[in-house]
Amino acid sequence: MNAGDGPQSYIRNSSYQGGTVDVVKPIIQDIIATKLDVVLTNPNVPICIADFGCSTGGNSLPTMQTITQAIKQKLESSSSPTPEFFVFFNDIVANDFNTLFGSLPPDRPYHAVGVPGDFHGRLLPRSSLHFAHSSWSLHWLTQVPRAVTDRDSPAWNGCRVLYTNERKEVHDAYLDQYTRDIERFLGARAVEMVPGGLMALVVSGVAESWNPETEHSVLTNHDVLESCFIDMARMGALSEAKLETFNFPFYYATPQQMKDILESNQSFSIERLEILNNPGIHTILDPAARAAAAKVVSGRLVTDHFGSETITDELYELYAKKLAATPVFKNTDNDKSLVILAVLERKTDY
Amino acid sequence: MNAGDGPQSYIRNSSYQGGTVDVVKPIIQDIIATKLDVVLTNPNVPICIADFGCSTGGNSLPTMQTITQAIKQKLESSSSPTPEFFVFFNDIVANDFNTLFGSLPPDRPYHAVGVPGDFHGRLLPRSSLHFAHSSWSLHWLTQVPRAVTDRDSPAWNGCRVLYTNERKEVHDAYLDQYTRDIERFLGARAVEMVPGGLMALVVSGVAESWNPETEHSVLTNHDVLESCFIDMARMGALSEAKLETFNFPFYYATPQQMKDILESNQSFSIERLEILNNPGIHTILDPAARAAAAKVVSGRLVTDHFGSETITDELYELYAKKLAATPVFKNTDNDKSLVILAVLERKTDY
Repeated sequence: MNAGDGPQSYIRNSSYQGGTVDVVKPIIQDIIATKLDVVLTNPNVPICIADFGCSTGGNSLPTMQTITQAIKQKLESSSSPTPEFFVFFNDIVANDFNTLFGSLPPDRPYHAVGVPGDFHGRLLPRSSLHFAHSSWSLHWLTQVPRAVTDRDSPAWNGCRVLYTNERKEVHDAYLDQYTRDIERFLGARAVEMVPGGLMALVVSGVAESWNPETEHSVLTNHDVLESCFIDMARMGALSEAKLETFNFPFYYATPQQMKDILESNQSFSIERLEILNNPGIHTILDPAARAAAAKVVSGRLVTDHFGSETITDELYELYAKKLAATPVFKNTDNDKSLVILAVLERKTDY
Repeated sequence: MNAGDGPQSYIRNSSYQGGTVDVVKPIIQDIIATKLDVVLTNPNVPICIADFGCSTGGNSLPTMQTITQAIKQKLESSSSPTPEFFVFFNDIVANDFNTLFGSLPPDRPYHAVGVPGDFHGRLLPRSSLHFAHSSWSLHWLTQVPRAVTDRDSPAWNGCRVLYTNERKEVHDAYLDQYTRDIERFLGARAVEMVPGGLMALVVSGVAESWNPETEHSVLTNHDVLESCFIDMARMGALSEAKLETFNFPFYYATPQQMKDILESNQSFSIERLEILNNPGIHTILDPAARAAAAKVVSGRLVTDHFGSETITDELYELYAKKLAATPVFKNTDNDKSLVILAVLERKTDY
């Protein structure tokens, strides 16, 4: 995610993602009130909460506030003494933690800690975590599936920039990587969470029925973005050889795929699994804003791969123009993006 | 401390401070081997280490490596199972944690966590910390003593920039603030440390015999620096009214003062208290390097107070010139700076 708080920063271009903060709030309040009884057990143990993929905090800080307040209310209504609260803010090492730390409210009801590192591995002490949260992060893969960049593989995806539903080998390579990544995430959290602890995952997904030919999804229409890469390669504005090995490392699960992955996990039980209303879907109908939001999220990958910020700038300018000229975006009914909410409980039987 | 890793960064201008890293290393190894038996008690509890005032990590990372390795060796030689290791890197919110996190060795034998905040207050979970370290940080005061900037106080220090030994009211106001700050630091750590846990403090101090008229101390000769402020005020290059309210917020304790403060604390026992050999004292004899090192540490305070980076640049340029013209600096015997090492143990009787 882009650093800082300038016009190209994630914090100023994440209203789409931020739309779910208010939608998730009452659900978090409800599950804490009705289920998170483990916080009542030992007032000498600090209550630990973690956000995996916190970025610079714009959407993370209100949610961490919601979680701490809800737990405090639960403790008060049961007349339990209130332990200390610690919130662990996690993101990759390259995240702009300086901006995050500078945004922490001085009167916050918790101690704040930053945890740099890949959340697919272990980050926190064993059996320490009471509530885990991750929002708009799990669609990022740890890597582009290898087969996709291997010329000799049937899953080779040269000159495409993402999987499509039509090419089964490519799609399956992506889904396989996604499944393994989510499993690693859950495996690490299973060690870190206390039995009875809860996890709320807000995951960017796509409808089962998505037809990439006539509908769009998740901030971008990848067909349109892909056509921009190809146009630029034809114009000589970027290297076709480099384009052959470029793929975006994210995957958008359908609700059924997510259900299958979560159900097969032995450490967590599914408490809730639903499709969220995402008010953010209506906030960036403007093609320029849509392209800007996409650039903030994925522009860095383009710059790193093609080695030039000019290429990235040109690409997303062209993308904005093409979006404006594509009638499919005029109707939000054509947006088949969806947001999956999963609430999991760390099982006690281990 | 200045951010990043450029020519004006702390990481490139802290060789003076870094000189003690190697001197402290065998002492840390020894106290861990002979005293830190609390790490052997429960393999299910993670070993927690913290560095208070880590800056961007240049001197902190090698010391954290020393501490973790020494504890691991102790566990191995007693055939104890090795728990997980967590290192908490603390500094103020404005610290450049991004550079620190980017400098963490990927193959480090511990999980790393960043803790933004004032170390004079609580930062970490209760009874969690096995080894606390702080180096070159405790001379920073939480504030300039109020009386010093109060025109109506006998301790008013207008147009001086630091205490001197001759003006007892000013000096006592500084020492009083220092004492209260160290007590708050120890009070917070007393809650966070496990009984039997160890703390190593490397503190910038000054010899009992220091005569500020004829000798210098701790990177700077404050008389010389002060004369630069006054020269610039006379030339109209900075505001005399602003100079009246400017004082540097640090204090250099003598070994006896440090001993008195530590002995009066009820939660810790003193295991070692000694004056360290500081090889760094010989590394920046050059006046330009000495002025640069001072600027990196305190230049930001000047800029913030006088509201201009140009003033800061001019001030430290003048300082370098005056240092070069001051014979007292030609002889390191005139440097009455010293480095105090205190090793404390968290008492178990509470």
